Amino acid sequence: MKLWDKGFSTDKKIDRFTVGNDRELDLLLAKYDVIASSAHAKMLGKVGLISEEEVKVLVKELKRISKDIEKGNFTIEESFEDMHSKIEFMLTEKLGDTGKKIHTARSRNDQVLVAMQLYLKNELTEIQSGVKELFDLLVNLAAQHKSVLLPGYTHLQIAMPSSFGLWFSAYAESLIDDLQFIQAAFKIADQNPLGSAAGYGSSFQIDRSFTTTEMGFETLKYNVVAAQMGRGKVEKATAFGISSVAATLSKLAMDICLYMSQNFDFITFPNELTTGSSIMPHKKNPDVFELIRAKCNKIQAVPNQLTLITNNLPSGYHRDLQLVKEVIVPAIQEIKACLEMMTFSLKEIEINQAILEDPKYDYLFSVDTLNELVKSGMPFRDAYKSMGKAIENGTFKPKRNIVHTHEGSLGNLCLDGIREKMENVISK
Amino acid sequence: MKLWDKGFSTDKKIDRFTVGNDRELDLLLAKYDVIASSAHAKMLGKVGLISEEEVKVLVKELKRISKDIEKGNFTIEESFEDMHSKIEFMLTEKLGDTGKKIHTARSRNDQVLVAMQLYLKNELTEIQSGVKELFDLLVNLAAQHKSVLLPGYTHLQIAMPSSFGLWFSAYAESLIDDLQFIQAAFKIADQNPLGSAAGYGSSFQIDRSFTTTEMGFETLKYNVVAAQMGRGKVEKATAFGISSVAATLSKLAMDICLYMSQNFDFITFPNELTTGSSIMPHKKNPDVFELIRAKCNKIQAVPNQLTLITNNLPSGYHRDLQLVKEVIVPAIQEIKACLEMMTFSLKEIEINQAILEDPKYDYLFSVDTLNELVKSGMPFRDAYKSMGKAIENGTFKPKRNIVHTHEGSLGNLCLDGIREKMENVISK
Amino acid sequence: MKLWDKGFSTDKKIDRFTVGNDRELDLLLAKYDVIASSAHAKMLGKVGLISEEEVKVLVKELKRISKDIEKGNFTIEESFEDMHSKIEFMLTEKLGDTGKKIHTARSRNDQVLVAMQLYLKNELTEIQSGVKELFDLLVNLAAQHKSVLLPGYTHLQIAMPSSFGLWFSAYAESLIDDLQFIQAAFKIADQNPLGSAAGYGSSFQIDRSFTTTEMGFETLKYNVVAAQMGRGKVEKATAFGISSVAATLSKLAMDICLYMSQNFDFITFPNELTTGSSIMPHKKNPDVFELIRAKCNKIQAVPNQLTLITNNLPSGYHRDLQLVKEVIVPAIQEIKACLEMMTFSLKEIEINQAILEDPKYDYLFSVDTLNELVKSGMPFRDAYKSMGKAIENGTFKPKRNIVHTHEGSLGNLCLDGIREKMENVISK
Amino acid sequence: MKLWDKGFSTDKKIDRFTVGNDRELDLLLAKYDVIASSAHAKMLGKVGLISEEEVKVLVKELKRISKDIEKGNFTIEESFEDMHSKIEFMLTEKLGDTGKKIHTARSRNDQVLVAMQLYLKNELTEIQSGVKELFDLLVNLAAQHKSVLLPGYTHLQIAMPSSFGLWFSAYAESLIDDLQFIQAAFKIADQNPLGSAAGYGSSFQIDRSFTTTEMGFETLKYNVVAAQMGRGKVEKATAFGISSVAATLSKLAMDICLYMSQNFDFITFPNELTTGSSIMPHKKNPDVFELIRAKCNKIQAVPNQLTLITNNLPSGYHRDLQLVKEVIVPAIQEIKACLEMMTFSLKEIEINQAILEDPKYDYLFSVDTLNELVKSGMPFRDAYKSMGKAIENGTFKPKRNIVHTHEGSLGNLCLDGIREKMENVISK
Repeated sequence: MKLWDKGFSTDKKIDRFTVGNDRELDLLLAKYDVIASSAHAKMLGKVGLISEEEVKVLVKELKRISKDIEKGNFTIEESFEDMHSKIEFMLTEKLGDTGKKIHTARSRNDQVLVAMQLYLKNELTEIQSGVKELFDLLVNLAAQHKSVLLPGYTHLQIAMPSSFGLWFSAYAESLIDDLQFIQAAFKIADQNPLGSAAGYGSSFQIDRSFTTTEMGFETLKYNVVAAQMGRGKVEKATAFGISSVAATLSKLAMDICLYMSQNFDFITFPNELTTGSSIMPHKKNPDVFELIRAKCNKIQAVPNQLTLITNNLPSGYHRDLQLVKEVIVPAIQEIKACLEMMTFSLKEIEINQAILEDPKYDYLFSVDTLNELVKSGMPFRDAYKSMGKAIENGTFKPKRNIVHTHEGSLGNLCLDGIREKMENVISK
Repeated sequence: MKLWDKGFSTDKKIDRFTVGNDRELDLLLAKYDVIASSAHAKMLGKVGLISEEEVKVLVKELKRISKDIEKGNFTIEESFEDMHSKIEFMLTEKLGDTGKKIHTARSRNDQVLVAMQLYLKNELTEIQSGVKELFDLLVNLAAQHKSVLLPGYTHLQIAMPSSFGLWFSAYAESLIDDLQFIQAAFKIADQNPLGSAAGYGSSFQIDRSFTTTEMGFETLKYNVVAAQMGRGKVEKATAFGISSVAATLSKLAMDICLYMSQNFDFITFPNELTTGSSIMPHKKNPDVFELIRAKCNKIQAVPNQLTLITNNLPSGYHRDLQLVKEVIVPAIQEIKACLEMMTFSLKEIEINQAILEDPKYDYLFSVDTLNELVKSGMPFRDAYKSMGKAIENGTFKPKRNIVHTHEGSLGNLCLDGIREKMENVISK
Repeated sequence: MKLWDKGFSTDKKIDRFTVGNDRELDLLLAKYDVIASSAHAKMLGKVGLISEEEVKVLVKELKRISKDIEKGNFTIEESFEDMHSKIEFMLTEKLGDTGKKIHTARSRNDQVLVAMQLYLKNELTEIQSGVKELFDLLVNLAAQHKSVLLPGYTHLQIAMPSSFGLWFSAYAESLIDDLQFIQAAFKIADQNPLGSAAGYGSSFQIDRSFTTTEMGFETLKYNVVAAQMGRGKVEKATAFGISSVAATLSKLAMDICLYMSQNFDFITFPNELTTGSSIMPHKKNPDVFELIRAKCNKIQAVPNQLTLITNNLPSGYHRDLQLVKEVIVPAIQEIKACLEMMTFSLKEIEINQAILEDPKYDYLFSVDTLNELVKSGMPFRDAYKSMGKAIENGTFKPKRNIVHTHEGSLGNLCLDGIREKMENVISK
Repeated sequence: MKLWDKGFSTDKKIDRFTVGNDRELDLLLAKYDVIASSAHAKMLGKVGLISEEEVKVLVKELKRISKDIEKGNFTIEESFEDMHSKIEFMLTEKLGDTGKKIHTARSRNDQVLVAMQLYLKNELTEIQSGVKELFDLLVNLAAQHKSVLLPGYTHLQIAMPSSFGLWFSAYAESLIDDLQFIQAAFKIADQNPLGSAAGYGSSFQIDRSFTTTEMGFETLKYNVVAAQMGRGKVEKATAFGISSVAATLSKLAMDICLYMSQNFDFITFPNELTTGSSIMPHKKNPDVFELIRAKCNKIQAVPNQLTLITNNLPSGYHRDLQLVKEVIVPAIQEIKACLEMMTFSLKEIEINQAILEDPKYDYLFSVDTLNELVKSGMPFRDAYKSMGKAIENGTFKPKRNIVHTHEGSLGNLCLDGIREKMENVISK
């Protein structure tokens, strides 16, 4: 049963080409179609397009379908193009004419839009929780290891003393920025598109404010053409958000892979989290982190994928927009898996406490030693030249007891400030 | 004079390769380096690293330089690597040792970061104004032309009646979404990085809260490593924002180019805004809109450019990050020009008032006619079949007096709601 | 059984995260692993690392596995990480110690590389055939409809007369260019990497020239580090090739969707290839072509996806490279489907023979009329001005019998030249 | 003077927006417009559209302009839109009506196409030379340092012995692959588009084979619509080529930056090629290589930039295509600079001869030691287990005198084979 069936059978090949993996993806989205259908039914009742009795049976039947979905008992057979046709079929099979009436004053485009936006809201909330969980871990690790020093690099050259406190909490604070984009995406998704029909509204006197409240949207996307334009756009907004998180995870994974190399030897992980070989017992391949890095790098390609699919299309619906789903849904699953795996694995990190004992790190302290000269009144450039000479002449003595006290420095991590900043962003 | 000069002359070729067009870009950024230097000088005074007298002369001299910049009298000669060295040179030339002291407790990396973030905050505010201006025009055009109908397309096939009211205000409401990203970028830029030094903080007891307030940042980026990580990240955040605006402008430009084609003939523009030829007098080439489209499409590539430059770099500064500037600064100039040109040109739009008189648009009204049947009680699917037969038998009569009344439909554009939504976003 | 198993059970979650959909993709690649294993076994025999008898049984058993694969009887159970472990397991189960010996002097990285390159060679050849088939159709359609005119557009404005002959064969000739990249990718894949082991070669005296000939590679990738570097690089080369083909298909699909709009009405397709609705009988939604366009646009994102995954990784194997497979394999399947669907559908195109009878196309002929003036001796710029006046005064008479005779013009399509060019490229 | 001037003055702002930096870019392309104009003039003479005398004076004057360009005396004032208008102006100023006749039977679109393709052919040839020069250096360095070992990494973990011979020549052989794309791009550019006029050919009986030979194109792009479609496509083909080279340079630069870190300390460069500071005398910042990496990563974004600009545009010229030039021309200059700088700098590389003396590299030799067991007849998997136990029990003795003899291994680099492969590719 195809909604656009005109009585002739379409070629099987075309069917496969046009439907793609929609049925599979729709299993994740079906729950939201039911929520939207239920709100739509209630609204139809409210404005008198169907009777209160019809509302009652429709909502009841939708609740039943919803339970099927929750239990994993909902399937979309090959005879159905997507979840929308399947759910409508179930309603009609059970309720006859009443079932058919659910489609009054809405179009499939409408349904896809609203189900996707409800789905995205839910996923963005889950991603935010995942980010928060990792954030908490990072802040805790920072507190726990705040006194362990490691070299700070510039140009990959040994430069200045850093600490695990700084390193962990840098990623924590950086994740807060990423949430700005997750939240921007959420706000864009949090506008009810239902009622836009095929993108040009309807002559029925539907009540869009009612469905807005019913489904818990903050506001409605008023303009029906704008609502339709949201297709592809809310997904791209989401893609910006997850790609921002992905960039931070990827960078952290890169650091981890580097720091696990025998040439750094700063950190390690238990065998359960690495791969190796019994003939190379030193080898601790950081496969999990390499895959987090790679998956997150792939996720960073998603905004561009969506741009390429949607760009230069004039306004109005095009079938092209169907492809957006198969790009964004797996990317969302993937960033959630990466967040989970990063948090799961990072808990087990083991830290080398004695990194800076290696004499190759001695010069790390030259800048701090220089600053002592400056504090004693010498202009910076002059102190710089004098230190240079001391080093050249071999008379330099590193001042190893570094004292950094300003806000955000290794002696004053301001973890409370960072935590508070996170709370401010999340509570918005 | 290179800050990293070690006394030997570097090859000219390398100089050209490494400096690139930094000097030119820095003319746009110099003003912000002066603001940050001034705040830094005051802070150095406050914490006692320089005297109040030194603060006074430094701030005064910086104010003078600031005026030079404003008047266009500031230049960066080939002997200077960038604005930072030039400004420091000017201070030292005028103030001697006092001038040198400005560099106490900060590094060039620091300066670049803070100047860039101040610049971005300013530009994002200007872009928001540009978006708001275009928004206002679109809402006004929607109000003015709300009764003029045009065909709504799905699959580029004539589908349902739309209106210029819907079309203009759809882009207006869509622009509000784009501002969510502009604002997310602004919030990310609005965190003071000054004091991170080379990315690992300083042993001086600097007062970062002081400079935060002094420069008008909402908060500080606490963690010094996180502050350094902001390099590339704030620019990419900005890129997400401007690329979001660009996508909307590009789509609007695509519609305009299509609607100006003789095959649509929905709108036109005065000769001053088009190009043509005297032998093809019908030709009104929409060069301005094609260039807006193309420039906005190019801007949409910017997030990916920045990702490619910064991706898979371990933490800590790398010279790679210098290249970020030459990508983001021109893109910002370009989106501002596109916004300006779109608003400038769109004001002159001329609208065909009689589009739907062409009989090829008759079927536009079939859905509304169908809905009348449904309102009279027939289930949707049955009404659909009955209509189909009427059309097939040639007995179909289109109901041309369309009445759409629901929120966001062509008879009820909710422009006040859209305006209020914009105000809510902007006032945050 | 994991090759890197160290005796402890790894967490299930990690397993799912690290293996991904490798098992599914490997079903397409298994055949090539068998080919490479067979060549490797023969080589091991030739250099005396295993006995001729061992070669015989290994090759025989591999042949049997190969038949299983062909018949669809080959499966990779969850207990196996990938096809390589499964095939080795099958050999060992059947042949005991002899089975184990197949892994002598090679590594899994090696196997992945060689199987992928054999796969790519095969797929690139199939894609070339698909392109050739579409090319032939386009040239035939050009010949068939060479006299039917349609408007040529510049800036989407009606500009000059074109023809279906020109339109079809333009895409044909354009496809030849795309094959240059398909062939470049083929040449890059056509270098035997087997023998690079983990990327640093082997102390066994293996004979790489033997396996090169045995597997039909044109040459070998000599340097073992270069061979390993090929991972990700051959796939990206392939991605350039298919993305080049995709760009051409996407553009053709865009033209088709536009030309099917009622505002153009140049072409149409039978109902079986379009979707519609009985209440909008004029609607012929070009879903197939919209999906070709969208899928081809998505394919154009693949080079960038691969770049993001592989970029800024230092030399040597990283687990990140595993992800390349899940990007390139589906993209290859997709471009093949798009080629097939385009050829399948385009055969059914129906062409409006009378497009230019609409008076809105009259000015199409103004340039040709102008040229008559020039041929009669008037300088171009002067003729241009004179024509402009004639049109302004309403005295212009279009010269409708256009005669274009130069090579590649609508009166002289040079289809033989284009066919010959294709042959030259293909036969290389 | 604008070619499309209709007698009214266009707003200055629009002018700036539409012309962009075309005039500046055109200085690089002007030489090729003159070559094409000269060929066009001769052709016009040959087919009798202008007299032989007119040909003579046109060609002579064009030669003079060509010399001006060569000497740097050619300028494009603000009163000219581009080089084409300036050159036509110069001809007309000098030759009157004869000058005007150069524009017979061609359009500006035509001129842009042919000049760009001639330019690209030249640049691609130069890039190939630059690649070849770097290739030669790499092969020589490989020969020179073939016996110096360095650790080979997998997963950034110390894995197997490698050598500078392998490392240098891996990049050499990898560059050969990149040339496949440079050559594919060259072949695509090597098809004469001149004569396509505005993209639909001309009613003049022009001789396109003549200009093909005259300008040294290998063949002509027959179909005039296909020729016009080349705009954007030849540039993207070039972008694939240079982005392929860029990926290799970027990876090499990444290795270099890593290997220069004190944590690796494999290589270094003289002070002239690095930056540092006198207080951190150990610091040798590899700015040149970081910038090569970053610039090459930025170049890898170019194909996507071009795709975004050109994608989903229906066939026929659009002003959007003008923007292609400002993307591809600087990218070409940049890859040439990167090649030059890489070759220039790499010559100075200084190699640590004693890397493997550090005991942390001992396990590098475990695989080779294992292989000895296998050679003595033990099945691989059994030898593996036995070795693992030896290591666990501390009874493992690394076999340090590694002997790799197979083709492409560290004992048998096959540099002659690699050189010959390069010759084969280049001589095509």
